[in-house]
Amino acid sequence: MTDYVLSSETRDKLKRISTASIATALFKRGLRNQFVQGVVPVSPKAETMVGQAFTLRYIPAREDRNPITVFRNADHPQRVAVETCPPGWVLVMDGRKDSRAATAGSILITRLALRGAAGVVSDGGFRDAQGIGRLDMPAYYARPSAPTNLTLHEALDINVPVACGDVAVFPGDVMVGDGDGVMVIPTHLADEIAEECTGMESFEDFVLEQVQAGESIIGLYPCTKEEHQTKYEDWRKRNGR
Amino acid sequence: MTDYVLSSETRDKLKRISTASIATALFKRGLRNQFVQGVVPVSPKAETMVGQAFTLRYIPAREDRNPITVFRNADHPQRVAVETCPPGWVLVMDGRKDSRAATAGSILITRLALRGAAGVVSDGGFRDAQGIGRLDMPAYYARPSAPTNLTLHEALDINVPVACGDVAVFPGDVMVGDGDGVMVIPTHLADEIAEECTGMESFEDFVLEQVQAGESIIGLYPCTKEEHQTKYEDWRKRNGR
Amino acid sequence: MTDYVLSSETRDKLKRISTASIATALFKRGLRNQFVQGVVPVSPKAETMVGQAFTLRYIPAREDRNPITVFRNADHPQRVAVETCPPGWVLVMDGRKDSRAATAGSILITRLALRGAAGVVSDGGFRDAQGIGRLDMPAYYARPSAPTNLTLHEALDINVPVACGDVAVFPGDVMVGDGDGVMVIPTHLADEIAEECTGMESFEDFVLEQVQAGESIIGLYPCTKEEHQTKYEDWRKRNGR
Amino acid sequence: MTDYVLSSETRDKLKRISTASIATALFKRGLRNQFVQGVVPVSPKAETMVGQAFTLRYIPAREDRNPITVFRNADHPQRVAVETCPPGWVLVMDGRKDSRAATAGSILITRLALRGAAGVVSDGGFRDAQGIGRLDMPAYYARPSAPTNLTLHEALDINVPVACGDVAVFPGDVMVGDGDGVMVIPTHLADEIAEECTGMESFEDFVLEQVQAGESIIGLYPCTKEEHQTKYEDWRKRNGR
Amino acid sequence: MTDYVLSSETRDKLKRISTASIATALFKRGLRNQFVQGVVPVSPKAETMVGQAFTLRYIPAREDRNPITVFRNADHPQRVAVETCPPGWVLVMDGRKDSRAATAGSILITRLALRGAAGVVSDGGFRDAQGIGRLDMPAYYARPSAPTNLTLHEALDINVPVACGDVAVFPGDVMVGDGDGVMVIPTHLADEIAEECTGMESFEDFVLEQVQAGESIIGLYPCTKEEHQTKYEDWRKRNGR
Amino acid sequence: MTDYVLSSETRDKLKRISTASIATALFKRGLRNQFVQGVVPVSPKAETMVGQAFTLRYIPAREDRNPITVFRNADHPQRVAVETCPPGWVLVMDGRKDSRAATAGSILITRLALRGAAGVVSDGGFRDAQGIGRLDMPAYYARPSAPTNLTLHEALDINVPVACGDVAVFPGDVMVGDGDGVMVIPTHLADEIAEECTGMESFEDFVLEQVQAGESIIGLYPCTKEEHQTKYEDWRKRNGR
Repeated sequence: MTDYVLSSETRDKLKRISTASIATALFKRGLRNQFVQGVVPVSPKAETMVGQAFTLRYIPAREDRNPITVFRNADHPQRVAVETCPPGWVLVMDGRKDSRAATAGSILITRLALRGAAGVVSDGGFRDAQGIGRLDMPAYYARPSAPTNLTLHEALDINVPVACGDVAVFPGDVMVGDGDGVMVIPTHLADEIAEECTGMESFEDFVLEQVQAGESIIGLYPCTKEEHQTKYEDWRKRNGR
Repeated sequence: MTDYVLSSETRDKLKRISTASIATALFKRGLRNQFVQGVVPVSPKAETMVGQAFTLRYIPAREDRNPITVFRNADHPQRVAVETCPPGWVLVMDGRKDSRAATAGSILITRLALRGAAGVVSDGGFRDAQGIGRLDMPAYYARPSAPTNLTLHEALDINVPVACGDVAVFPGDVMVGDGDGVMVIPTHLADEIAEECTGMESFEDFVLEQVQAGESIIGLYPCTKEEHQTKYEDWRKRNGR
Repeated sequence: MTDYVLSSETRDKLKRISTASIATALFKRGLRNQFVQGVVPVSPKAETMVGQAFTLRYIPAREDRNPITVFRNADHPQRVAVETCPPGWVLVMDGRKDSRAATAGSILITRLALRGAAGVVSDGGFRDAQGIGRLDMPAYYARPSAPTNLTLHEALDINVPVACGDVAVFPGDVMVGDGDGVMVIPTHLADEIAEECTGMESFEDFVLEQVQAGESIIGLYPCTKEEHQTKYEDWRKRNGR
Repeated sequence: MTDYVLSSETRDKLKRISTASIATALFKRGLRNQFVQGVVPVSPKAETMVGQAFTLRYIPAREDRNPITVFRNADHPQRVAVETCPPGWVLVMDGRKDSRAATAGSILITRLALRGAAGVVSDGGFRDAQGIGRLDMPAYYARPSAPTNLTLHEALDINVPVACGDVAVFPGDVMVGDGDGVMVIPTHLADEIAEECTGMESFEDFVLEQVQAGESIIGLYPCTKEEHQTKYEDWRKRNGR
Repeated sequence: MTDYVLSSETRDKLKRISTASIATALFKRGLRNQFVQGVVPVSPKAETMVGQAFTLRYIPAREDRNPITVFRNADHPQRVAVETCPPGWVLVMDGRKDSRAATAGSILITRLALRGAAGVVSDGGFRDAQGIGRLDMPAYYARPSAPTNLTLHEALDINVPVACGDVAVFPGDVMVGDGDGVMVIPTHLADEIAEECTGMESFEDFVLEQVQAGESIIGLYPCTKEEHQTKYEDWRKRNGR
Repeated sequence: MTDYVLSSETRDKLKRISTASIATALFKRGLRNQFVQGVVPVSPKAETMVGQAFTLRYIPAREDRNPITVFRNADHPQRVAVETCPPGWVLVMDGRKDSRAATAGSILITRLALRGAAGVVSDGGFRDAQGIGRLDMPAYYARPSAPTNLTLHEALDINVPVACGDVAVFPGDVMVGDGDGVMVIPTHLADEIAEECTGMESFEDFVLEQVQAGESIIGLYPCTKEEHQTKYEDWRKRNGR
C-alpha cells in the first residue's frame, strides 16, 4: 500500500483542472492509459471529484455463494468497503465492466457520502441511480442497472490493486473526475501533475479568450509565436495567474 | 395467452415501488434475468410505468418484402399493434437489440399514447425521439435512430412470446419501468411481488432516513439488530406504513 | 471533389425537416445506410445542423510519430482542418469509431465555431465536452473522452472520402443533424430530398394533429383514404403549407 | 408457409455452386443481407449443404419454466423439431446469436442426421461439437458451448419465420452452405439463382484457369474483352459446360 | 484456500466424462455459469484435461511499472506461477478477456508442462501458440496474440480467487477441459459430479447407440419409457457399465 | 512514400524470426501497437510471410456507387491493386474491421499470388476462402464471408496510409506474418529489428532446449545467471549461431 497522502494544496489544484489536462500531462510522461473507459457521471456536478482510491474487487457471482442472506454478514466486503473508505477518498469498484447488474445502490452510496467520501467510481452498474444522482457527492458508473449485485458480482476483497474501466487502479492513486469522466494519477506523479496542469489550465483559459476574440489557433495553441508568449505573460500578470 | 388481469390494487402498489426492489424480490425466487438489458427512458418521467405486455416481434427485413409501400397495407403488424394494444398495457417490441434503425417513431407512439397505453419498450431504436420524449406516456428504447424500421426490421407477428433486451417477455407479463429501466414480472408472481416490494420500499425509506441521520448500514441494512427492528416498527406506526 | 454548392433555399428547407424524413426519402431511392451510427449530440440544440462535409481522416497513432510536439507544426492536419473548413460547412472526422481517446477538444471546436462552421461530427470522442456543449454550433460525437487524440489517432489527411459511423462521407455531401443524430445526403440528391421532405414534414404535421385529435393511423399514415387526402388539402390551404 | 418444393434438378445445381456466387446473384437482385453472419462449419465437408429451412425459435430461458425435467415432455419443441424436420431439409435455429449456451448437442443432431436431414444451422452454440463434426451431415454454429440450452434458451415454436445470424429465414427458404458459411435463398428465386450461378461457376472455373496460366484479371473478370469471350466459348465446348 | 485434494478416482472418472455432462449436472444444482466463455483449445487433444486450479491474476499494465526489465526479477508473479503451480494442477489466468496481448508464450508453457502441470487456461492470448499446441499438455486460450503480456497485462498475484471467461475460479476448483471448452467445478461438488456424470455418460453412450440404430429420441432421451429403461439395464450388464 | 527497399538479407532474417520476437523488440522501442488485431491465417503455412506493404483502402459502400457493373471499369481500385502490387510485397487491405462482406475472393488472390506477391492481409473477410487457403502464398483475414465486397465496401484508393486491424500501416512498412498473426515494422526499424530478433531467436532456441531438459526459467529467461550466459555462449559456438 502507498504512504502517499494527498495534500490539501494538491487537492485544491486538482479541483481546478480538467481531466483532459491531466491526460495530456500523463501522456507526456508515457502514461497513455489512465482514463477510466466507459464510465459517465450519474448526474452533472459543479465541482470536480478529487480523492485517493479505496478499492473494492468483485468477481463473478457463483449462485451458491451469493444468496440474498449474505448481506446479513457484517463482514460482507461491499458493506465493509462502504463503512471503511476514508473520508476524502474515492471508492473505486472493479465490476469487470459488466453492467448487467448493479455494483451498488442508493442506500449504500448515500451512506458513503454521509461518511464523507469524495466520490465513487464503478465500471459496473448502479441501481436506484436517480437517488445517487441527487447526492452532492460525485458518482461515476457505466449505466443504471436494477438487478442486485449478487446476480452477477461477488464482492471479494478490499484495497487491492484492481482494474476499473481497463485502467490499473492501485489503492491510494489519485482519482480526478469531471464532465468528461475519470483520470487515475499514480501517487508519485500527483503533486507534479497538479502543478503542471495548473499552468496548462491558465494557458488554456488565455487561449480560449484569444480564440473567442477571433485569433487563429496556429502559432497560439501550442504557443510557437513569440507575440503570443508575450501576450500570455501580460495576461497572467493582469489576471494574477 | 394469459388470463391474468392486473388489478388496480396491484397496479397502484407497483406504481410506488422501484425496479430495484422488484429485481431483488424476483432474485429471491430464483429469477435472475428479468431486467431488460440495454434500454433507457427516452425522457425522465415522474411516474413509474406499469402495465401488461402486448408484444410485437420483428425479424430482419428482407429488401423485396419491405418497400415503403407496405405501410399502405391496413394489416401491417406494426400499425395493427399500435391500434390494438389495450389501454393500460405496454407495447413491447422485440427489435433483436439492433438499434441501427428505428422500431417506431413519434407519430405511432403518439397514437399509442392517445389510445391509453401505459408505455412502450423497444430494444431497438426510436426515430423522432424528442417527440416521443415529450409525451406523458413513458417510453424505453436503446437509442435514437433515424432510419425507418423497414431498413432492418420486418414487423412479423403480434402477441407471441418474444425476447426484449435478453429477457423473455410473454404476453400479459407485468412490465414496470422507472429511472433504472424496465423489469418483467411473470403474471403468476405479480400480486405477491407487488405486496412484498411494498414492504421493502417502506423499510428502505426508513433505512434511508436512518442513513441520512448518520446511522451505519451494518446491522441496519439488512436489519440484523433488534434495536433497528424495534425502531422500524415505531417508524411504521408513526408514518402509517 | 464536388462542384455542388448548397443553395440557401435548400439549406433553409433542410433546417425545417427531420433526419427521420431524410432517412425515409433516401430509403425510397435505395440508399439504406446514410445514418451516422453511434453518434449523439454533445448537447441539445434548438436548430437543425445543415452544411456540406469537410472531412478529416485519422489513422491509428504510432507512438514515435505522435509525440505532444507535433502540434507545434503549423501544418498538422487537425489544426489545418479547423482553420480551413469553410464557413457554413460541417467538419466530419473519421475516428474509426474509436472513442477511447478524443478526436478534438473545446478550444479547437470553439475556433471552428468562431470561423463560422455549421457544425462538427466525429465518430470518436471529444474532450472538454461540456465546453463544446456550451457553443451554439451543433456538435455530434460518440462520447466524452479525456485523452488527447495523439494517444490513439493520427490526423492524416483532409477532404478525402472517409467513413464516419459506418457511413461513406464524400467531401461536399450534405450533413443534416437533429436530436436523432446525423444523416448524410449525397450532393446529387440534396435539392430533391429537401423538396420532397418539405412535403413530408407538412403531411406529418397534419397527421400528428389528427392523431392528437384522436384519429387512427390506419388509412391516415400513410394516407390511403380519400377523405384524409381531402382533409389534408384543406389543412394545407388553411396553414399555407 | 411456402408451397415451394426444391426440385432435384435445382438441388443438384446448388450442390455444385458456391455461396459466394449465390451472394453475388442475390446482390444483383437487390438482396444484400442473405449471408448468415457469425456461423462456421463444425467441421469441413466435401459436399455442399442444400435444403429447405425448417425453423426452431428460441427465446431467453426463464428459470422457472426451464428445469431439466422439461425434456421429459414429449412435446418439447426442440425434440419435436428434431423428430419432424423433413428428410432433405435443413433445421435452422434462431438462438439470438447467443452462444454462451448450446442450442443442441450431438445426440439430437445425430438423430437429425439419421432421419435424413440435409443439415443444421444455428447462430448459437453446440455442445459435444466434436461428435457433431464426425457426422456426414453438415452443421453450422457459432462455436462449441458446453451448457445445456435450458441455461439460456427456451425452445418456443417451430416453423415460423425467424432470424438466424441477422438474416430473415422463412420456412421453406433454400439454405446453401459451404466452407465460407451459409446463404439463404428465398423460394421464389431458388430455381433462377441455381441456373444463373451454374453459368457463373462455369465462367469462374475458366477464369481461374486463365489466371493460373498467367492472364491478367483486367478485361477477363468480369469479361469485357471480346477475345476472352471467344476463348470462353471455346472452353465451354471443350469442357462440355 | 481449499483443503480439497482431487483423488485419483475422481480424476479418472472426470477424464472419461464430457464438459457437456458436467454443465448439466451443475445446472441441476443451480449453478448455471461454470463454463469458461470465449476460450478454445490451442490444439485438439485426445485426452480430457483434469486438474485443480492454481490462479494468476493480471491487471492492466501501467507503462512505468512494466518495462521489459521486470522479467529479470526472480519474483515476477508470472514466472513464479509457472514455477510453483503444483504437478497435476491447472494454471488459470485471469487476463480480463483481453486478448490483444499475450498472457504467456511457448517457453513458459513448455516449462509448465515439463513441471507436470495438467493444463493451462487463459481468457487472454498466447504467443507462439503453435509451439504451445505441439505440447501434450492441454492449453486453452482466447486466440493467438504476438504482443508480450507487458503491453497490456501486469501479473499481480497468485492463487487468489479470479474471474476467467466470466466464471469465478477459486484456487483448488476442479477444471475439466475437452473439445467444447472448460468447466469449473467447485471443490465441494467435484466427487459427486464425477460420480453422477459417469452414469450420465454411460446412459448417453447407450442412447447414441440406439439413435444410430434408428431409434427416436422421444421417450428415450430423457428416458421416460419403461422399455428403454429395461433395454438400458441390459445394455449396462452386457457392457459392464 | 518511402524510399526504403527491403534487402534480401533482412528478408531472409525475418523469414526465420517470430512475430512474438518482433513484438517484443518493438515494445522495447516504445511501439506497443504494431500487431494487426483480429486477423488469422486462412490456412497454416510452413513459411513466414515477409514483404513491404502495398495498401488498398475501402470506405463504406454507398449503394448507388457500387452496382455489380463497377468491376467492368478497368480502373477499379481493387482490381488495380491486385495488378500493381509489386512482386515480393504484401497487399494490405483496410476493411474497417467489417467482415460481414468480403474484401476479396480466390480469383483475385490467385492472380495476386501468380504475380509474385509475398502475401495479403485484410481486416475484413475473404470469399471462397478455401481456394485462397490452397495457395502457397500466405493470406490473413478476419473470417470467411461470402458477400461480394460491393455489399459493404467501396475500394477507394491505393498506397495511402491506412488502418488495418487497429494498426497504422504506411506503404512500404514491413509486414511479417506467422501462426500468431501479423506484425507491422516501420521501415526505419526493419533492419535493426531483423538483426536484434535473430539474436533473440537464437537465445530462445537455446532456452527452449534447456527448458525441455528440465531447467527452471528463473535466471534463464531472461538470462540473469552467469552460468547460463556461459552455457549459451558455448551453445552458440557448437550450433554456429
